[in-house]
This record gives sequence, C-alpha cells and structure tokens, in this order.
Amino acid sequence: MDKKNTRIPTLISMSEVARHNTRNDLWVVIKGKVYNLTSFYKQHPGGKSIILQYAGKDCTPQFEPFHPSNIIQRMLDPNLCLGDIDPSSVQPEHKAGTTTAATTATKAWVKPHLNQMLNVFDFESVAKHTLTKQGWSYYSSGADDEITLRDNHIAFQRIWLRPRVLVNVRHVDMATTLLGYPSNLPLYITATALGKLAHEDGELAIVRACGKKKLIYMLPTLSSYTLSDMLAAKGTHQIQFGQLYVNSDRQKTKEYIQELEQGGCKALFITVDAPQLGRREKDMRNKFTEQGANVQAEEDDEGAVDRSEGVARAISEFIDTSLCWEDLAWFKSVTTMKIILKGVATWEDVIMAYETGMVDGVVLSNHGGRQLDSARSGIEVLHEVVPHLNKRYVDWRSNFELYVDGGIRRGSDIFKAIAMGATAVGIGRPVLYSLGAYGQAGLERMLQLFADELTMVMRLMGTPTIQDITSNHVTATSLSLHTGSNVRDHLMLNTYEPLVTSSL
Amino acid sequence: MDKKNTRIPTLISMSEVARHNTRNDLWVVIKGKVYNLTSFYKQHPGGKSIILQYAGKDCTPQFEPFHPSNIIQRMLDPNLCLGDIDPSSVQPEHKAGTTTAATTATKAWVKPHLNQMLNVFDFESVAKHTLTKQGWSYYSSGADDEITLRDNHIAFQRIWLRPRVLVNVRHVDMATTLLGYPSNLPLYITATALGKLAHEDGELAIVRACGKKKLIYMLPTLSSYTLSDMLAAKGTHQIQFGQLYVNSDRQKTKEYIQELEQGGCKALFITVDAPQLGRREKDMRNKFTEQGANVQAEEDDEGAVDRSEGVARAISEFIDTSLCWEDLAWFKSVTTMKIILKGVATWEDVIMAYETGMVDGVVLSNHGGRQLDSARSGIEVLHEVVPHLNKRYVDWRSNFELYVDGGIRRGSDIFKAIAMGATAVGIGRPVLYSLGAYGQAGLERMLQLFADELTMVMRLMGTPTIQDITSNHVTATSLSLHTGSNVRDHLMLNTYEPLVTSSL
Amino acid sequence: MDKKNTRIPTLISMSEVARHNTRNDLWVVIKGKVYNLTSFYKQHPGGKSIILQYAGKDCTPQFEPFHPSNIIQRMLDPNLCLGDIDPSSVQPEHKAGTTTAATTATKAWVKPHLNQMLNVFDFESVAKHTLTKQGWSYYSSGADDEITLRDNHIAFQRIWLRPRVLVNVRHVDMATTLLGYPSNLPLYITATALGKLAHEDGELAIVRACGKKKLIYMLPTLSSYTLSDMLAAKGTHQIQFGQLYVNSDRQKTKEYIQELEQGGCKALFITVDAPQLGRREKDMRNKFTEQGANVQAEEDDEGAVDRSEGVARAISEFIDTSLCWEDLAWFKSVTTMKIILKGVATWEDVIMAYETGMVDGVVLSNHGGRQLDSARSGIEVLHEVVPHLNKRYVDWRSNFELYVDGGIRRGSDIFKAIAMGATAVGIGRPVLYSLGAYGQAGLERMLQLFADELTMVMRLMGTPTIQDITSNHVTATSLSLHTGSNVRDHLMLNTYEPLVTSSL
Amino acid sequence: MDKKNTRIPTLISMSEVARHNTRNDLWVVIKGKVYNLTSFYKQHPGGKSIILQYAGKDCTPQFEPFHPSNIIQRMLDPNLCLGDIDPSSVQPEHKAGTTTAATTATKAWVKPHLNQMLNVFDFESVAKHTLTKQGWSYYSSGADDEITLRDNHIAFQRIWLRPRVLVNVRHVDMATTLLGYPSNLPLYITATALGKLAHEDGELAIVRACGKKKLIYMLPTLSSYTLSDMLAAKGTHQIQFGQLYVNSDRQKTKEYIQELEQGGCKALFITVDAPQLGRREKDMRNKFTEQGANVQAEEDDEGAVDRSEGVARAISEFIDTSLCWEDLAWFKSVTTMKIILKGVATWEDVIMAYETGMVDGVVLSNHGGRQLDSARSGIEVLHEVVPHLNKRYVDWRSNFELYVDGGIRRGSDIFKAIAMGATAVGIGRPVLYSLGAYGQAGLERMLQLFADELTMVMRLMGTPTIQDITSNHVTATSLSLHTGSNVRDHLMLNTYEPLVTSSL
Repeated sequence: MDKKNTRIPTLISMSEVARHNTRNDLWVVIKGKVYNLTSFYKQHPGGKSIILQYAGKDCTPQFEPFHPSNIIQRMLDPNLCLGDIDPSSVQPEHKAGTTTAATTATKAWVKPHLNQMLNVFDFESVAKHTLTKQGWSYYSSGADDEITLRDNHIAFQRIWLRPRVLVNVRHVDMATTLLGYPSNLPLYITATALGKLAHEDGELAIVRACGKKKLIYMLPTLSSYTLSDMLAAKGTHQIQFGQLYVNSDRQKTKEYIQELEQGGCKALFITVDAPQLGRREKDMRNKFTEQGANVQAEEDDEGAVDRSEGVARAISEFIDTSLCWEDLAWFKSVTTMKIILKGVATWEDVIMAYETGMVDGVVLSNHGGRQLDSARSGIEVLHEVVPHLNKRYVDWRSNFELYVDGGIRRGSDIFKAIAMGATAVGIGRPVLYSLGAYGQAGLERMLQLFADELTMVMRLMGTPTIQDITSNHVTATSLSLHTGSNVRDHLMLNTYEPLVTSSL
Repeated sequence: MDKKNTRIPTLISMSEVARHNTRNDLWVVIKGKVYNLTSFYKQHPGGKSIILQYAGKDCTPQFEPFHPSNIIQRMLDPNLCLGDIDPSSVQPEHKAGTTTAATTATKAWVKPHLNQMLNVFDFESVAKHTLTKQGWSYYSSGADDEITLRDNHIAFQRIWLRPRVLVNVRHVDMATTLLGYPSNLPLYITATALGKLAHEDGELAIVRACGKKKLIYMLPTLSSYTLSDMLAAKGTHQIQFGQLYVNSDRQKTKEYIQELEQGGCKALFITVDAPQLGRREKDMRNKFTEQGANVQAEEDDEGAVDRSEGVARAISEFIDTSLCWEDLAWFKSVTTMKIILKGVATWEDVIMAYETGMVDGVVLSNHGGRQLDSARSGIEVLHEVVPHLNKRYVDWRSNFELYVDGGIRRGSDIFKAIAMGATAVGIGRPVLYSLGAYGQAGLERMLQLFADELTMVMRLMGTPTIQDITSNHVTATSLSLHTGSNVRDHLMLNTYEPLVTSSL
Repeated sequence: MDKKNTRIPTLISMSEVARHNTRNDLWVVIKGKVYNLTSFYKQHPGGKSIILQYAGKDCTPQFEPFHPSNIIQRMLDPNLCLGDIDPSSVQPEHKAGTTTAATTATKAWVKPHLNQMLNVFDFESVAKHTLTKQGWSYYSSGADDEITLRDNHIAFQRIWLRPRVLVNVRHVDMATTLLGYPSNLPLYITATALGKLAHEDGELAIVRACGKKKLIYMLPTLSSYTLSDMLAAKGTHQIQFGQLYVNSDRQKTKEYIQELEQGGCKALFITVDAPQLGRREKDMRNKFTEQGANVQAEEDDEGAVDRSEGVARAISEFIDTSLCWEDLAWFKSVTTMKIILKGVATWEDVIMAYETGMVDGVVLSNHGGRQLDSARSGIEVLHEVVPHLNKRYVDWRSNFELYVDGGIRRGSDIFKAIAMGATAVGIGRPVLYSLGAYGQAGLERMLQLFADELTMVMRLMGTPTIQDITSNHVTATSLSLHTGSNVRDHLMLNTYEPLVTSSL
Repeated sequence: MDKKNTRIPTLISMSEVARHNTRNDLWVVIKGKVYNLTSFYKQHPGGKSIILQYAGKDCTPQFEPFHPSNIIQRMLDPNLCLGDIDPSSVQPEHKAGTTTAATTATKAWVKPHLNQMLNVFDFESVAKHTLTKQGWSYYSSGADDEITLRDNHIAFQRIWLRPRVLVNVRHVDMATTLLGYPSNLPLYITATALGKLAHEDGELAIVRACGKKKLIYMLPTLSSYTLSDMLAAKGTHQIQFGQLYVNSDRQKTKEYIQELEQGGCKALFITVDAPQLGRREKDMRNKFTEQGANVQAEEDDEGAVDRSEGVARAISEFIDTSLCWEDLAWFKSVTTMKIILKGVATWEDVIMAYETGMVDGVVLSNHGGRQLDSARSGIEVLHEVVPHLNKRYVDWRSNFELYVDGGIRRGSDIFKAIAMGATAVGIGRPVLYSLGAYGQAGLERMLQLFADELTMVMRLMGTPTIQDITSNHVTATSLSLHTGSNVRDHLMLNTYEPLVTSSL
C-alpha cells in the first residue's frame, strides 16, 4: 500500500479477480489484497509457474508459509496492489486448493490423544495425517534413493550398548553446556526451513517451547517468521544460536549476521553442505516447488516439471557456490559470535576446521539425508573423526566441540552420540512432526519423551551424569559395515520383476 | 478384616457398590469384600488411575495376579473394609472387563492338543490366544524398539556348530551341577514376575514341575504367590534359588533374604540391571499398567497415559537406585547363601565381580530385552567375557560360574551356551507361555522338549556328557557382527513411505 | 503264504475285514492278502501306531514305499495271512487315505510340459504338486528351524566367480574320475531313502538314468527296492557305490557290505552323521511317521504325536550309536571296497580320517540339513578343510578325495565346489523331485540341465577341463560370514507381534 | 528380388499364403513379399522353430528388429521370393501376434509425461508397459538366478561418499576424454543388441542423441540397423567407437573391423566375455528365442523349449569360442584403431592385457549380468584391479584406461566409478528403456538426468572437475562383503514352504 491510495478503495469482487486468470492478465488475492502480477510473475524468485497456477485465485494459504510477513512491501511495486477484496464475494471455489497427505486413507482415522504419543515415531505417523500434502512431502523427503535418509536412523542400530552395573544412579543429571551455554539436555533444535508448513505458529512455537524446556534453538535462515520475530519471542536468559545460508551478496549476509548478533544469538552455524540443493524426488513427485528455499524444479508453461540446466544456474544466484575456506576470515571480521561449520562429513575437513583456529566446532551432518545420497550418517562420521582428533591434539576438547544430527529418535541415540564424542545432538524432523501434529504442546511432549528416555538410559547404563559417559559404554565395530541389508532400494524393487518357477 | 467387625456383616448389594464409582466416592469389590478406597487410591503403589477405572466394580480378577494373598491385611486400614458383597447381586456388567489378546482373530481358532507342541515356539503361539490381553502384553513386550528382545534369540543363529563324528554316543548324560547343586539339565527356571497372569497356579505350578523334572527354580521377588507359598510347595531334596530386587529399605531386604535362606534356598541372585524399569511400549500401548512390578506409566484423571517426571521419581522409592559395589559386603553379612549378580553385561563388570571375592557367579543377561534396548544378548557378552577370565585367572572356574539367559528356544541354544563357557542357561518366557497355554502339564512338556532336543544335539555333536562340550564345538566369529539385517525397525517401517516410480 | 494253505482259499469280503478294526482285533489288507496283525502290531519296527490307524483297511499304498518286496515273507508268521481279499468288495472308503501336498491350491494347476523345466528349482515346484503329502513332507523337510537346510543352498551365493577371458574354450570336457572310476560329470547321485515315495520305479529309475548318463549312483541302505534289485538293474560297465547305515548287529552289517561288494559296488560310503535321526518338524507336523527309516515320533493311542524318552531309546536299537573310530579296522577287515566317511563336518575329523590310513575320502555333508540344525554347509566346511590338508600333506590328493553335498542347484554350484577342492558333488533332493515330477525322463532332463549349465559355466570361466579349475577362480571371503540376513526365522516371525505406532 | 522376375508379378492373396502353413509347405510374408521357406527354414541361423510358428502368416514386425535391411538379399535364393502380397487381402488375423509385457495390468495405466521422468528408474518402469513382451523379456533378463544382474546395481550402495566442504564449486565441468577423444560426460553408450526391439529408430536414434549431447556411442555388432546406417547417421566431429563379436570366420571379422575403421570409428571394443551366450531364463520362460543374437533355446517340433547339446554346438559356429590372447597380434595387424577388451573380470587379466602392450584399456564388465551368474560387478572388480596396477606400474594411466559398466543408475554411481579409478562408465539398459518409452527424446532426457545428477554430486562433493575426484572421496571397505542379504533367491523362495507353528 503506498501513500497515493489514500482514498477509501472500492472493494473488488472475487468474480472480477477470477476473470484475470491468464499469463497475460494475472491477478491474485493475498491476505485480502488484490495484486496484478502480470509483469511480476516471471521474476518471481520462487519460479514463475507457481504463480501461474494461482492466477485469478485467492492464494493466501499457499503464500504464507513461504514468505516472511514483510516480503510484499520489500519486493513488490506498490502500484501493483489494486485494492481490497470484497470478503463476502469469496467462495470456496475461488481458493487455491490444498490437500492433505493422506486423504485417501483417512476416512476412519481418528487423531490419537497427545498422551498416547509414546515415542518420537508416533508423532511422525500422526503428522502424516495432519500435515498438508505439501508439508509432508517437503519435510519427509530425502535425496535421490533416500538411502542416506534411512541410514541416518539405522546407523544407530549398528551401535550397541555396554551397560555398567552397581553404580549409584539415584540422581541422574542430564544438564550440560553447548559452546559454554547451559542446556537442560545434550540436544538442541536444529534449523529447519519453513516452520509454518508444520503449524501456523511455526518457529515462534519452537522458540517458546525451547524457552520452557531450557533448550537451545538454532534459528533458521529460511524461516516462515522473520528473524526479528524469532528473536523477539525468546524469554529472559534464553539462549539462541543462528544458522546461516551464505548469500553470494555478502552485504546481505553481513546484515543478517549482525541482526543475529545484535539479537543476542551466541553462535553462528554456517551451513557448508548445500552449495546446491539436493534432489528430493518424493517432493518433486508431489509437484511441490520449494519457493522459499529456492526451487530445484520449476514447472514450465504446460505445467509439467522441468529440470533444465537453467534451473541449476538459477540456484547459484541465491546460495553462494563459491564459499570456501578462505572466506572464514571474513566471517571472523564481521562477528564475535562463535562459529560452527554445519555439514562437515570427513575427518579431513574437521582437522582443517580445527587448524584454522577460527572455528569453535562442527556439526557432523548430511543435512537430514536431503542433500547427497550415499553420504554417511553423522554418527558414522563421528566414529571416524574422534580418533584423528585424539591422535593429533591432546586437549582439543578445550576449544572445539563436535555435534551430530540426523536420525536421532531415541534417548539411546543421544546417549550413543555422547559416548562417541559429541557434545550434543541436533533434532530436526521430530520437531516439525510433533509441532505439525499437536502444536507447541506436541513439541513439548516430544522433548519430554527424549528427556524421559535419556534419564532411563543413563540410569540403566550406570552413568548418572553426562561426564560419566565414555566411549567404553558403546561398541561400534559394526557401524561402518554397509552390507546393504538395510538399503531397501524401493525404486529398483518396484521395477524389478522377480523370477518365477515354471509351476507358478 | 479386623477384630472390631465381629458382628455378622450385612451383605452389601452390588447395585449399591456401583453407585460409588467416582474419585470422590470410590468403592470396589475384591474377593467378596467391599472396600472404600476414596482416600487410599492416591497412595496406591501401583498407580492411582488403575483403581479409578475399577470404581464401583468387582475387580477381583484384575487384583489377584498382582498381589500376594496377604497384601490387603498388610497395606489397608481395616476400617476401609465395608463388608461382604451379596454374591447374588453381582451381574456380569459389574465385573471389570478383561479381553483376550487375540479376540479379533480367534473365531476359528481351536486350541491344539498338548502333544502337538513340537517346539518351544509352539507354546508361545498358543499362549497368544489363551492369555489375557493383559498377560500377553506384559510378558511378550520388550524395551523400546524391541531390538534387543529379538537379538536375544537371533544371536544364537550367528553361532554355528562343529559336530564331531565317530564318537560313541550310546549313552548321553545331560546332568550337571549349578553352584554345586545337582540339576538334570544345564538349565534353570529364571525368576519372572506375576506368574498368575499366565495361570492361576502361577509360581506353585513352576515349583512342582521343577520338582518333578529335578530342575532348579529361581524364586522371583515379584511373585503372585507369597514367598512362603513357594518355599512350602517344594519337594524333599528339591533345590531352590532366590532372586532379589533390592529395596531401598534395607531392613525389608534383609528380612526377605533371611526368609529365603531359612526356607532352604541355596543361592541369592541379586538383580543389578533394573535400577529403573524399562519402557515396554507394547505393554504401554495396551493400556496395561504394571501394578505389582511398580508402574512405569500412570493414567491421569482423563484416562490417557501420562509419563511425568514424577513417575520416574516414584519408581526410585521401590527399587534402590543407589545400589552399588560397596553394598556387596552388606549382603555377605546377612546371608551365607551363594551370591550371584543377575544382569551383568560387560567383561569389566564380570572381572569386578570376580575380584570382590564375594560373588560366586554372574548371570549375563539383559533382563529378557525388557530394560535397555540396544544392549547385547547374554550369549554375545559371554563371548566377550570368557577370554578375559581365561587370560587373567588360570583356575577361575573353580569358584566362579557364568550363566546366560535370554532367547533360548532350542536344545542347540543350550549347547552353544555351554560350549562357549556357561554353566547353565536360564529359561524365562517359555515357562510362562507353556504354563499359560496348558498349565503345569504344558510346562513339563516344554521342559521335556528341551531335554529331547539337547539329547539329540549332544548325540549328533559327538559329546555324550556336558564335560565333553568345548569351545571347539562352535564357531562364533560372526556373533558380534551387527549389520542390522535382522533389526526390523517396525516403528520406522510403519511410518516410512517408500519411494515410487512415476509409473506406479 | 506257506505250504499249508494249499487249498483254494475262500475270498474274504472287505466288509468282513472292516469289522476287525480295533487294537484287540486288527486285520489289514496288503497287496490282496488279508492279515491278522493283532499280535504283531506291537512289535512292528516302524511303530505300532502306524498300523493301528490302518486297522480294518486296505493299506497297500501306504505299505509299499516303505517295505522291500520280500519283507512280509521275512518278517511275518505265515499263519497270520488269512487269505485273499475279494477285490469286488473293496470300496473307496475301505482304502486308507492319502492326500496330495497341495490339494487346496491345485484347482487350476496344470502340470507343465517337461521341456518347460528350465532349471532344477522347476522340478521342486512341480513335485510339490505331484508328490503325495507324505512324500513331500518327508523329502522337503529339514531339521528344527531349517536354518541349515536353507544355508546349504544360500552358502553358494556367498561365493563369487572370477572368470578368466581369452582362453580357447572351443572344447569343454566335463569328464572326471571319482575314486578312480570314470564319470561323465563331477557329480554323483547320493543315497536318499524311500525312492518309491517319489515314483513307483523308485531307485530302479535312478539306476537306469545313471546308466544312460554314465554317472555313479550311491545305493541307499534304506531303499524302497531291495539291494539285489538295484544291483541287478545296472548296465554293463556301470559303476555303483553303496551307502551304509551301520546296524548295531554287526553280522547284518557285514552281510550287507558283502552283498554290495559281490554286487560289484566299488566304494562304501559309511554314514557317520546319524547316530540319531534329526527332528524334522515339517514332517512331524504332517503326522507322517517314518516307518522305513525308523520312527522319530510315535503316535500314542489317542492318535496325537508323542515324543517320550522311550522313542529315543528305541532308535538306538536300529542304528549303532556307539560307532566310533576304533570300528574302522573292522570295516577294512570285511571289505576291499574303498571306504569313504559320509557326513564329516570339521577339519579335525578330516585329518583324523586321513591319518587312519584306512579311509579313501570323506563327504563333507550335513545330511541335507535333516540332522543337526546350525551345522554349517558342506561347502563352508570344504573351505575350512583344504588349507589344513594342504598345510600338512604335500600330496594328499594322491590317495584321498573330498566330496560335498547339500544345496547344489546350479552348474555354477558344482563349479564352485570343484574350484574349492572337491572331486565331485552329491545330488540328492533334485533327484527325488525330478523323478517325482516326471519319472525317469524328468531325472534325465534334470541331469542334462546340470550338464548344460556346467558346460556354459566352464566355457565362460575359461576352464575347458575339470583340471583347469582352480581355487583362483572363486572368491569365498564372505562364505563364513553369518550375519543372519538369510536366516528367516519363520517360527519366530510367525509368532512375534510387530510394534505399531499409535496412529495405526 | 532377382532379374528374372522382371514382369509385373501377380499379387498373391493372403488367403493363399495362409494355406501354406505346414513344415512341408511353408510360406511367409515379409515386407510385402511372399517367400517359400519350405527348404530354407531348417538352415535358418536363428533356429528353425521360430519360422515354423509364422508359417502362413505375415511376420514383418517379428522379422524387422532382428535383421539388417539387406539380409534377405544376402541370405536367400531369389527364386524363393514368390511375388508381392495383395495388401488388401491382409486381415489382422493373418499377422503373427505380439503382446505387450504388461497387458494384464495395464487397464488403467496412463503413460506419464516425459517431464515426469525424474530418474533413470522411471524410464524402466514405463518401458515395462510400452515395450513388447518380447522386447521387455530380452532386455530385462539376466543370467540364471539374476544375482549378478541385481548386484551390479546394489554394489554401488555398498560404496559411500566422503564429501568435502568449503570448496569453490561455482563452475562444475564434467567434460573429459575417453582414449583421448572428448566427451561431455564421463560416460558412453555401450553396445546393446537389437535396438529396434526398443524403438523403430533403434540405433539411429542413439547415434543422433549422442551427436546432440556430444557423447560417444559404441556401435554394436548385433544391431538392428546396418553398420553403414549407423556410421552414416553421425554428425560432423561426432566420435564413435565400435564393439566386436569375433566371428570364427576371421575374414568376416576383418571386413567388419575395416568397415568400422573406414567409417571413422576410433576404437575397437572386443567382447571377451561371451564365448557362449548366457542362460536368461526370464527370456526363455517367455518363449522368446533370440534370433539375431543366435539362439540359446530352440523350439522343437511340438513347440516346447528344448535345450539339446546341439544348440550349444550351434552357437559356437557364430561366435569364436577359441578366441584367445594369441589372437591379439592379428587384431593389431588389421586395424590402427585403439583396442579395448570388453568384459574383463579379474586383476590377473587386466595385468595380462596391459603387459601385451597391444591393448589400450579394458571394460570391467559382466555383460549386464546376462552371461555368468555369480560374477562380480564391474565396480567391485575395479576395486580389486587398481591397487594391482598402481603397485606394478607407476605411470599406467598414461597409456591404459579402465572402464566400468553394469548397474549405473545415478549420477553418484558415475562419481563412484571415477573416484575408484575408471575413466568413464558405460550405460546400457537405461538407453534402451528410455528409447523404448519415449523415443529419442526419452533418451536425451535420460542422459540429461545423468548430467544434472552428476553436476549436483560433483558440487556437493567439492570436486568441480573430473580431475578433482580421487579415491579419497569414497569409502568402499564393504564393497566385497557378500553377506547374501541382498541376494533375493526368488526361485528358492517361491518354492520353499516356510515352517509354521502349530497354532497357525
């Protein structure tokens, strides 16, 4: 809205809007305002086809999860706003459609009571029903054959526990510190994009739950709420970290970093495993294009998915593909926050990070199995990394910390990561699923389940405090064995036609 | 019942009882008596909600398996007994309901003849039909993802046999000694809780079957019958051992130990792997709360399961979470029975136990996969332990014995454990399943199947006596390989949505 | 029939026979004769209950596969023959029933043309339809959980081939010698019991097919035809070996050996892996009692299977459980045939056999997975044995040969065994299945498929003759890895109840 | 057609043709001409029965994919051509039938839009619907149990990636050289037989797509189009290689090689893994006989499949089974093209090839799993080969190249092969499937998917050029572990009858 439109605007009828539904005459309604996007749609950073499919419609629900609240003011010529829609004229058929992930199977489904959630998987299976198809596809998908996605979890089942008995475990204390900041548990909420796809309270609910549980949330760059919203929502003494996708426009990056620091964030987690976004076919199959997170696929005029080379190039405009070790000094020059590299996957890079002297830790991660399929799980990389650090640096733990994310679903998974040398683990999808299933209350219960399970595991392991947990409490000799037995190659199996005997 | 109620009580009508069915006015019928539990239910050690659901009802069948016969006298103010119920007034709808585990699938099911039981699995599959849902859920469940529960059995399939030929095996002799006491087979019945959930004769049937078969039974602390009942039921010369959950009230513990010793028990198996009870979700899912064994979950007022931190604390009131190595001297001071630690899971703890000089053996066990998921099977731990003992102590077998329980279902499983260094194995669930399916006769047949199978295995292995069995008769090089191939992650698989090709 | 009954007997009516159908008055019809077995049935070597169930009936079809043709004359008092049955009086209901293995599933089944048999598995899947339930159960079953049964085949899939290229393979020659005797292929037909259960021509068809294909047949002790029949059926120059179950009555054993030798048999394969017969539950489940092969289970009066200790003892009367190394000298004293031990399963016993100087070879075998479950496959044992022989004796191959049986289903399986050091492989079940499916023609085609496949494999491996095949042509480093991935524990899986999430 | 038939031929009616439908009077119609094949059919190189089944019919569609256009002129006596068919007389029932692979399941199937093809598997699943049953059976089948077929793909899943971070990957360059010739990607299209079975444009479409994408195609000997057609179809500067099946008539081989060289082919890939064609049972089961590729199975007069020894001999007439190392010098004497051995499978043979000094490289391949089942995947052989070359020859890469084919379905598979030492990979079935599903456009999209995926993988691996990729970027320690977990033994599993408990 700009100053010139000061007179009371005439309300525009939805039937009028609906007539402007072609590429050459393209109106849409967003949050009660009518916009003419005929000229804009081709420049839409999230892809032109996504707008074309909403031509002549009210697409507010589709718009909201992907755009911070101030995006229209920042991006759109005010003259393109034609006025207010007449709310009484909007019929259901005028709204762009969304469908839930499980419409065909939900007839008899009754949502269980929150108290029936007994483990972290329960939330995921409920979220499959409660999320939109869009949200479910986006969150649940992994890269390519989803081998890494699944091994992230399964890897923990190749690690076995060695419990010690006859230890006084009356008092179990799970408190620890992350980069020197206190946390009630050795876990943090990792950055995940587009929280509103899970729940309308999105990232704000996560901030609030973390405040209540005294846990640390790593604020995502690609959030549904603005950074200032997320910073404002935190409680007194609540600790926040910030995640960063580095923009090739370094000025924008600098501004974002400084907003984090001024907002009280204590550490900067620079994502280093996403110079290009991975191919998530489950998501692509569902014809969902990630707008906020930059598209990988763009629909062409005919509406079918296209993956031209141009798209790959387009992506490089948003995330800096040239980011490299030499850039670390620049980050040190613009912030005093601790710096952690998020997405390291080899001992060589951990050593390089340590040797720069500018990095306070790394997250061993494969981006939730969403980037590079066949990448090893964070926990497997941890198993490789620690001996190299121990061999080279007697006291590396005094100024360097290791984090792991990916596949953590049980208190015992957290225990295993700590035993193998991690300071804490990052939790991602379970946050979105519990939030999407039951809102903030769901998220809090999910975190409580982790706490309950870890309490029990620490008691049964004979390790009443985090400091008591050692590498001797696990056996991981089979961790790096990849016999393929858990690699369910669904694409191949769906295609392959088994041999039959003649009498069948 | 106390002395004051000496006059003949008026019979109370069930319709009267049924009116007192709220938390503020809560009557129940147990064994023909009417009790007012309005004030008591909140202090019920087994959880308040379990009583709430029986408000206004006759809950005798629910009460009995979980409580020794003298519990009411011991626990309840005699004034809370209001009198006798009028039996003629009790209609079916007044009884608290129980359902069998397999009601939906049992239409055509006909219970097989006992003689059709050809192996130990058969009893379990029958018991699935004959047990109550409560009993089945309680017995069959394991901790968390039940990975350890299943690996307990599967581990034996990673051990292969090396039979020797042309040995005279006309006479096979399976007799051996456990802690110096004779046993017809290298197996004993291990302690399991709440025998009445399987069969109304519960522990007494087990005592009698063991007497008949000349096998040793380890009497459980959490029995359905009283200790004195179990001690009284044994035959002349019958050997019994006793299992102990250590109470934080050491005086009670001492009394229990002394009752065992005075009752003729020869050895004390101190459970060291249960400072907190494990999470058994299959059981929790069935809304069953373990009353006798102390609840892990407690239903809140709305009837949905709750797992507040308070519960975890509550548990520590019953089992001593502070039990530690230093306490062993105290045990030696209160009993002359042999002392065995039940639930040891690492070679380090075996060495510690041996070095105390106060312990006569250990049971390598993970509590039937009911406590800590991802713990290794007892047989795998045995494989780790024996070389450490052999390396350190030339003659350790002269005063120290190793036992294994968990997953034993075949005569060949027993053979493997003996070959790898165990003195005998403990049998748990098969006892309950065979008892629950066919009563004492079922239990006896199950034990006979073990005997028949072991006879055959020893004959085919070329080892006519227990002493002939050596480590050379097995190959266990793959035992500690955990490639995950048998880890069926049911929770994950039920949730995960497979990839599909575009043409499906 | 004895001399006294010279007058023409009155024909006995079947309705008369049917009246004598109790244990105290028990008539049966066999091959047109009526017998009174009231006194005999308790001494029946195959178990009394098997006769009881045929009381008052014509059991000719049940009798024939288990008894050589001269058995009645040898065993039964002639007076017990009451006369001839009146054939016109025999109605279908008078005949003891047999059912085929797949009656419920065979409605639409059409037997494929023999030429459609493309591999060895095809015969098994046809035989499942064409065999009687009795025959299928007896042949297809393995011991206990059938883990060894299945690993026998699967083990070959852990061995991979290393084909050499650019070798002139115009002429492929598969001929070889076994113990110095020529064979067209490096395979022989191993002894299997009760050939008539597969086909009425039974062992005779096998003898004839071997004659035609110039292959060697190891005549079984527990044959359906008499030894003299089998010896008589062979062609000029046809080589035969003989298998021996050692009877505790050594005189009978001696007579049998001498009949073999006088019949021209060249080698004696002494079975050493069956001091007791294995438990084959699939067979027991089908209520089939192995009469000819001595029962393992015996039905009690109520008709339910019983496995009392008495049965185990009974078995020891037939097969000598005391057979041991010291007995070898005796065998050498009663025969000049070559002596091979059948059923050796460790390198230690191979070395012992070699060191006696009395043994010309061993068959590494687990009796087709029918004896000791968890025993390793013959091919895995071979992998263990050869290095031990090579290390100790430079020239062991000059007077000692290794054979393998179990699980061979492909030409490549034969190749692998040869490459790893076997002289030839034994084929068992495929013989019975191909015979049972198509008679002698089926058996011949099955053998031809092995020949065709082996020709192809030898050509593609670059090994035109048997002598060209070396250990370098295979890689077997994973052979002894038993990760359990192929151990489908059907009994456990049928019983175990998977975990579910709350929303299912 | 020969000179004598110069007068205008009378058109022959199809009903006339249909009368000549026996082995003694056998006419067929091919491409509008009527031929009398009564005398010829027995000499038909592709087997006599295949002609018998078309007696009296128009078999043009069956003829075309298997025969180059000039074959009739070259093979058939001109007098056997009886004249032209009257096109108006040909009714549908006169045409020899073909059926599609999935007729029973295709009712509701709608072919997806090309743009919905998101990965290489998608093309295969579409091709299953669009190919004829003949084509699908021929292409999709593998040898014997198809263990090697499946391991070719699965082997890549036992190799895991070690991505490096913070590398400038703005510009990704996938260009490389193969034997010194430029290629846009480190992949080539490998020779596959009978392209018209996929699409009527067959090999010509492949030539054109390669021209457009600047990739190299290895022209197959057993093509549907003539060699001159394939050579003529290429664009300026387009590079082609040639594949060779060596004929025992060396003159014919020489002519073929010289036609390749004169046609501009740069390298000769001599197939060394096919002295006999493998048994592909899926193909045989579908009663398809490979005519062009020489039959493995030949139908006898009754129409049932026969596999007599004669067939094996017949094959040796076409492909030279005596080809050996000594022949290499002859090849060098007839061509100046680079020489590569296609189908090498051991380090020993790679060393032999290198040591000859006459060979410029090898393709590590098992012929797409179509020849020798149990042969290892090319990628596994590569893992074995490279250390041997490195150990022996410091600079072997200067004059020797390694290629791998088999199972490549992802950009990450290509990456892994390069990392482990391959110069490039060969793509086979995906070419045929994408061509069969969507013609040349499908093939181009499939190649583009590989390019897109490889771009992404190289960016995420931190390797912007092919030269940056090293063995350090992968971990292949589990590659040679064959635990059998992925060996789905379909034939066995279809036959084996699982154990059941008594209560089922």
